[in-house]
Amino acid sequence: MNTRHTLRTHCARHLDTMRAEGRYRDFARLEKIADRFPLYRWHQPGGAPREITVWSANDYLGMGCHPAVRQAAAAAIAAYGAGAGGTRNISGTSPEHAGLEAELAAWHGKPAALLFGSGYVANQASLLALLSALPGMIVFSDAMNHASMIDGMRRSPAQRRIWRHNDLAHLEELLRAAGPAAPKVIALESVYSMEGDVAPLHAVCDLAERYDAITYLDEVHAVGLYGVTGAGIAERDGAASRIDIIQGTLAKGVGVVGGYIAGEAELVDYVRSTAGGLIFTTSMPPATAAAARASIRHIQQDTALRDRLAERAAALKAALDRAGLPRLPSESHIVPVPVPGAEACRRVARQLLERHGLYITPINYPTVPRGTERLRLCATPFHTDAMIGCLTAALRDVLPLAEAA
Amino acid sequence: MNTRHTLRTHCARHLDTMRAEGRYRDFARLEKIADRFPLYRWHQPGGAPREITVWSANDYLGMGCHPAVRQAAAAAIAAYGAGAGGTRNISGTSPEHAGLEAELAAWHGKPAALLFGSGYVANQASLLALLSALPGMIVFSDAMNHASMIDGMRRSPAQRRIWRHNDLAHLEELLRAAGPAAPKVIALESVYSMEGDVAPLHAVCDLAERYDAITYLDEVHAVGLYGVTGAGIAERDGAASRIDIIQGTLAKGVGVVGGYIAGEAELVDYVRSTAGGLIFTTSMPPATAAAARASIRHIQQDTALRDRLAERAAALKAALDRAGLPRLPSESHIVPVPVPGAEACRRVARQLLERHGLYITPINYPTVPRGTERLRLCATPFHTDAMIGCLTAALRDVLPLAEAA
Repeated sequence: MNTRHTLRTHCARHLDTMRAEGRYRDFARLEKIADRFPLYRWHQPGGAPREITVWSANDYLGMGCHPAVRQAAAAAIAAYGAGAGGTRNISGTSPEHAGLEAELAAWHGKPAALLFGSGYVANQASLLALLSALPGMIVFSDAMNHASMIDGMRRSPAQRRIWRHNDLAHLEELLRAAGPAAPKVIALESVYSMEGDVAPLHAVCDLAERYDAITYLDEVHAVGLYGVTGAGIAERDGAASRIDIIQGTLAKGVGVVGGYIAGEAELVDYVRSTAGGLIFTTSMPPATAAAARASIRHIQQDTALRDRLAERAAALKAALDRAGLPRLPSESHIVPVPVPGAEACRRVARQLLERHGLYITPINYPTVPRGTERLRLCATPFHTDAMIGCLTAALRDVLPLAEAA
Repeated sequence: MNTRHTLRTHCARHLDTMRAEGRYRDFARLEKIADRFPLYRWHQPGGAPREITVWSANDYLGMGCHPAVRQAAAAAIAAYGAGAGGTRNISGTSPEHAGLEAELAAWHGKPAALLFGSGYVANQASLLALLSALPGMIVFSDAMNHASMIDGMRRSPAQRRIWRHNDLAHLEELLRAAGPAAPKVIALESVYSMEGDVAPLHAVCDLAERYDAITYLDEVHAVGLYGVTGAGIAERDGAASRIDIIQGTLAKGVGVVGGYIAGEAELVDYVRSTAGGLIFTTSMPPATAAAARASIRHIQQDTALRDRLAERAAALKAALDRAGLPRLPSESHIVPVPVPGAEACRRVARQLLERHGLYITPINYPTVPRGTERLRLCATPFHTDAMIGCLTAALRDVLPLAEAA
């Protein structure tokens, strides 16, 4: 055994397999043009940068480019520097962190909130901490839950029961079968990122009450976008008070970076005091917190921005339908266009970029099951009618299915 | 069973236990004054902000406050906005990310590098990926390795053998006992954060060669600080070419936020292509990458800054010794002052802050073993002789041991 040689050979072979299956990922180099979002410059290998339109950004409201957010970030960097300089416990808690946590808690109507470096870590660390708290816990997990939730659940000692995506009857069946003795947690998302559909929150909360479960809701694809102040689907549906833990991100609708949970004070403080992913990591830069606060303040008041997003998403769907293009049913701003087969999906995406100057990420395994590969379109308030027109024309050009439509 | 009530009661009791043991952590609210680092404003609960000196920042070189770094961050925010707007694979790879990865690779003398949102995630995700690659792997882990490394190792299927801290004879004993058949990884840090001591890299690499192990080195407390271009202890000792994977952070010496690994192309690409903690998370803001690049460019050239850090660390140690104050042996800029007992350590830290305007984090379990609690002092180039004088006087005032000295 030569460890170095064996390991390198294994890694090289694994990468070759990914290439052969069309699953090897090259990261396109995209330079955002903040003043002209969603326009970017694509830096192609060996070519001159080329201006393109991005249809796959998760900065759903363009808030990362908003002048007030940029100004807040710049002012905070001038005042506090570029980094936090420590973990939350080692000189890395600024008044900006504390203020943001208080505002996030209030936004979601909860007593407390807690910041993490990312939504991924927020889910992973919080679920791990909460599901390890009591012996014999059972977590009921929607089949489409995000990898970060699965990561936290898997690492915990809790048993995991997976209910078919948004299938209330199946959830109830599993809850009933679990019996009354075990402590139970229902874990779900509000808007599912790869499907674009929305969970029936009140119906899930009804089951949670009936079967004595607490609820953990990932709102990362909804925060900023839904509800009268943009707090998410739980706010829109008037269900926030029925959810025990709401998890969110500052990296999508809010346009910055970082994640958080909001909930009852004891639960949040317990996670704060026990989660390794929080204690042992440098806190977010104060300027990140300041930028997020500016973004949230704007979002809470700008209902026109949310209305515009909903209108643009509807326009996108209508245009796809008019053009006879396939799409998965979506109740949100996320519009998946199916292109089965990893290689086909990647080829179509490459053609859209090279021929038409449109960047749309091909989504393949392990993000979605094999055979359900798709292009994932995200409307933003800044995608114009002209951009939608270019998109549908380009899709008709490159999609293998479009011929028959 | 009432799940909600039972869980909340459990959490509240756990927090009470932490309070009773002196392990409950309040995060002091510290507002960095970037133009006057290491001065901060302490926002005490219910009181007016008060100017204090921080002795526990991990912005070891003050680079987070350097004008060139702040300017680079501000310019990049103006150009690219506040966030990346996607994962690395979903429109979140900018030329700044790619450029930073190329520069990090070159800095460490490796073919490739890969960014993560934090050093914690870099360790956790990379060790998990690499230790899961081959069946039957054994990882030999220094007893003082950081929680993030332990997290990644524990979650992997690899067997873990823990060698006594910096004890080469013990490491060799364990390597020999493992036999020649298993693929082996030695995982260690260069500068140990809570001890301040340094690993004997060449001797470890000698053992790695003799017993056919690859080496994984965490340089987070050394990057920027040691070596002719600041690449770390491996550069200082001329050992970088003998290390397979070097892991580092952009949040300490570099003064920003984020983590990375550098190593052979196949290994880095394998981690890039398989690590969930990378694929499923929003990439760092382009402005963070731009700030880190500016910082590293400065660090590589400014040997005077490193010399000043070394001189200040020596001055701090000499002053503590002259004042008859206890300290643990340290070969680095990190100087631990032992204050055994979590409650005593917290009390001393509180007195330093309230009476003397000095912020020094008390380090207790689980960061260090119970009974070895300590104050962790970090010299920076900006701690003056007058600040050192105030510190030693304050320590003599508050340390229970100082009376006998």
